[in-house]
Amino acid sequence: MFERFLSKDAALLKGSEIRDILKITEGKNVISLAGGLPAPDTFPVEEIKKITQDILDNDPEKGLQYTATAGISEFRRELVNLSNKRGITGINDRNVFATVGSQEALFMIFNLLVDPGDVVIVEMPSYLAALNILRSRKPIFIGVNVKENGLDLDELETKIKKSISEGKKPKLLYVIPTAQNPAGTTMNLSDRKRLLEIAENYDILVVEDDAYGFLVFDGDNPPPLKALDKSGRVIYTSTFSKILAPGFRLGWIVANEEFIKNVEMYKQNVDLHTPSFTQMIAMEAIKRGVIERQIPKIRQIYRHKRDVMLDAINKYFPKDARWSKPVGGMFVFAWLDKKIDTTKMLEEAVKRGVAYVPGASFYYDYSGRNTMRLNFSYPTESDLEKAIQILSSVIKSFS
Amino acid sequence: MFERFLSKDAALLKGSEIRDILKITEGKNVISLAGGLPAPDTFPVEEIKKITQDILDNDPEKGLQYTATAGISEFRRELVNLSNKRGITGINDRNVFATVGSQEALFMIFNLLVDPGDVVIVEMPSYLAALNILRSRKPIFIGVNVKENGLDLDELETKIKKSISEGKKPKLLYVIPTAQNPAGTTMNLSDRKRLLEIAENYDILVVEDDAYGFLVFDGDNPPPLKALDKSGRVIYTSTFSKILAPGFRLGWIVANEEFIKNVEMYKQNVDLHTPSFTQMIAMEAIKRGVIERQIPKIRQIYRHKRDVMLDAINKYFPKDARWSKPVGGMFVFAWLDKKIDTTKMLEEAVKRGVAYVPGASFYYDYSGRNTMRLNFSYPTESDLEKAIQILSSVIKSFS
Repeated sequence: MFERFLSKDAALLKGSEIRDILKITEGKNVISLAGGLPAPDTFPVEEIKKITQDILDNDPEKGLQYTATAGISEFRRELVNLSNKRGITGINDRNVFATVGSQEALFMIFNLLVDPGDVVIVEMPSYLAALNILRSRKPIFIGVNVKENGLDLDELETKIKKSISEGKKPKLLYVIPTAQNPAGTTMNLSDRKRLLEIAENYDILVVEDDAYGFLVFDGDNPPPLKALDKSGRVIYTSTFSKILAPGFRLGWIVANEEFIKNVEMYKQNVDLHTPSFTQMIAMEAIKRGVIERQIPKIRQIYRHKRDVMLDAINKYFPKDARWSKPVGGMFVFAWLDKKIDTTKMLEEAVKRGVAYVPGASFYYDYSGRNTMRLNFSYPTESDLEKAIQILSSVIKSFS
Repeated sequence: MFERFLSKDAALLKGSEIRDILKITEGKNVISLAGGLPAPDTFPVEEIKKITQDILDNDPEKGLQYTATAGISEFRRELVNLSNKRGITGINDRNVFATVGSQEALFMIFNLLVDPGDVVIVEMPSYLAALNILRSRKPIFIGVNVKENGLDLDELETKIKKSISEGKKPKLLYVIPTAQNPAGTTMNLSDRKRLLEIAENYDILVVEDDAYGFLVFDGDNPPPLKALDKSGRVIYTSTFSKILAPGFRLGWIVANEEFIKNVEMYKQNVDLHTPSFTQMIAMEAIKRGVIERQIPKIRQIYRHKRDVMLDAINKYFPKDARWSKPVGGMFVFAWLDKKIDTTKMLEEAVKRGVAYVPGASFYYDYSGRNTMRLNFSYPTESDLEKAIQILSSVIKSFS
């Protein structure tokens, strides 16, 4: 009976492909390379236990009562400290905002900034859950390819000029400069500076998703765009899901104070505030150095798992396939022979015991049908090797 | 710089009046009757401590890892059990959905159902945060007065007929039948049945807010509308904020499975899922009987505080004032002399040491300017008496 009552916005919704696939695999003996789950052995369980005890012993009301919409003030100050560690300086607690995961951060940012018909630039490929939020805002998309070193800046500038010449000035660029999801690339410092110059020249807002900022395990880790942002046009978001535990659903925004005030008003409508209890836990995890001790551990585990996956891919994948060599994050992205449709191949892969995310979901226009995203953070090492072996034989049977 | 980038939706946002007032009182020696905070001495701190320990000892991954968008399945089954205790039977786990407080439930429900220009019926007065979400959807409002026994059903039917005769069929009724916020009224069983008949006859959806459903401390507590709903047109929402602790930000929806699927798709955009950790805590609190033991305790504390407030009002308020005698919930609502504007009076009240919420915020059209909402759950008994005494002298000086 509900269909005829639904709003126009509801009709635009699309379920997440990842979650649909996870449903297919439920109860089956399938190794999933589909999710983006952290390895559970990275969770600092004992330290969290000590922290929850202390909160409930020393200041239970702070963790159990309502709090301010932007977050517990003490927690916001710790978010400033944590952002400082990523090189973002010159900010104070009025520049940071606690959210229910970086998903809610992106949801609020895009709802506050994007109207139907606005021109929005996204990477190809890009983070699929962000694309789904953007789609619900009905913008005009411009896609710019990601190359070995991240976003192709020549293409970016050409496409901006073209769009302006057609009377459509781009409003916003959504970008993942560090350990890009799904491509695994990281932009170098000079490209970051050039990107900001382009944004400045054409007056474009930049939404920077730094979900994997602390998870770069090879080579340089240049500062985020927000650290280089002089005019306040970068809106930065990150998350505790990868450095503490995703079950807390905690993320944060760093932005210009004026924008934060708009987020605050919107958040009052969405859910009043982020849970106090989980804010207190994360706050103590920063204060006590838990996060700082976690980061090198997680990097080491994921570096090793990445190597296991890349070795297996190298060994088993068909020779006409290409794949990323990620310097961070949780994923390898692969480009297969043009005639393979990874969405169609998925059913057979699941039947043989492996799940992945078909790459089309990571393209705003569902192109990239011959691509796929493979997660290496969650499966065990032996499962990683086994899964790639099975997957390779599926791919070969589709070639 | 951000104003020119904001979306049309952002421009509609309005900060919560309650929160603005709370800001005024910060750092000042003010007794606040403004908030809706539970009494901190009702929080079962020791039991929560034991529960968090056990979760982290026995099944840490369940509390710390990502989970399904609709909630942890075991928790959903417990939500079914808890809803059963409110008389809602014949449902299963596919009818319930875990949200970040009932605020997020209302946010998703209204976004999924209300388009600009849709006709929405609300109580006068009604819950201000729900009104703010609804305002952001740009509906046509119909206001129906709340009388001693809740929503005036004759007025409801008359106004529905009038709207239909003008070619505007109402789509949705938002109602708080039990311990209404702010009016404190509870609809009797026969009125509930008649309300559902009206909804059925005119094909109107009913969104039932049962935030205070477990907090009725006097007289009968008739079953919620959802328990009487035969056709599945009632969408029910409730919260753990009043029966466990608001710092967990946990609420839930009970609805028709088809609608729940839409909520699931929307929630994937909003924040992926409600925190696993807090879900596990609430789940154990239901399983171990903590909630069941809490309810009579909280009722007793609030019944007593209500009596203290009513006694003081009776003693000190001017004789031309009217006020509710709430049978549940956390608030007394007062109607003052028509010439008093409680919004204008607030500054003086705060100066003299008392805060409250001006009643205009609880009217979709900001009428009811001579009304005010007074919270009795949070202040201590001596503060309640003192605050009413001060407030009465402020009112008299404005009369």
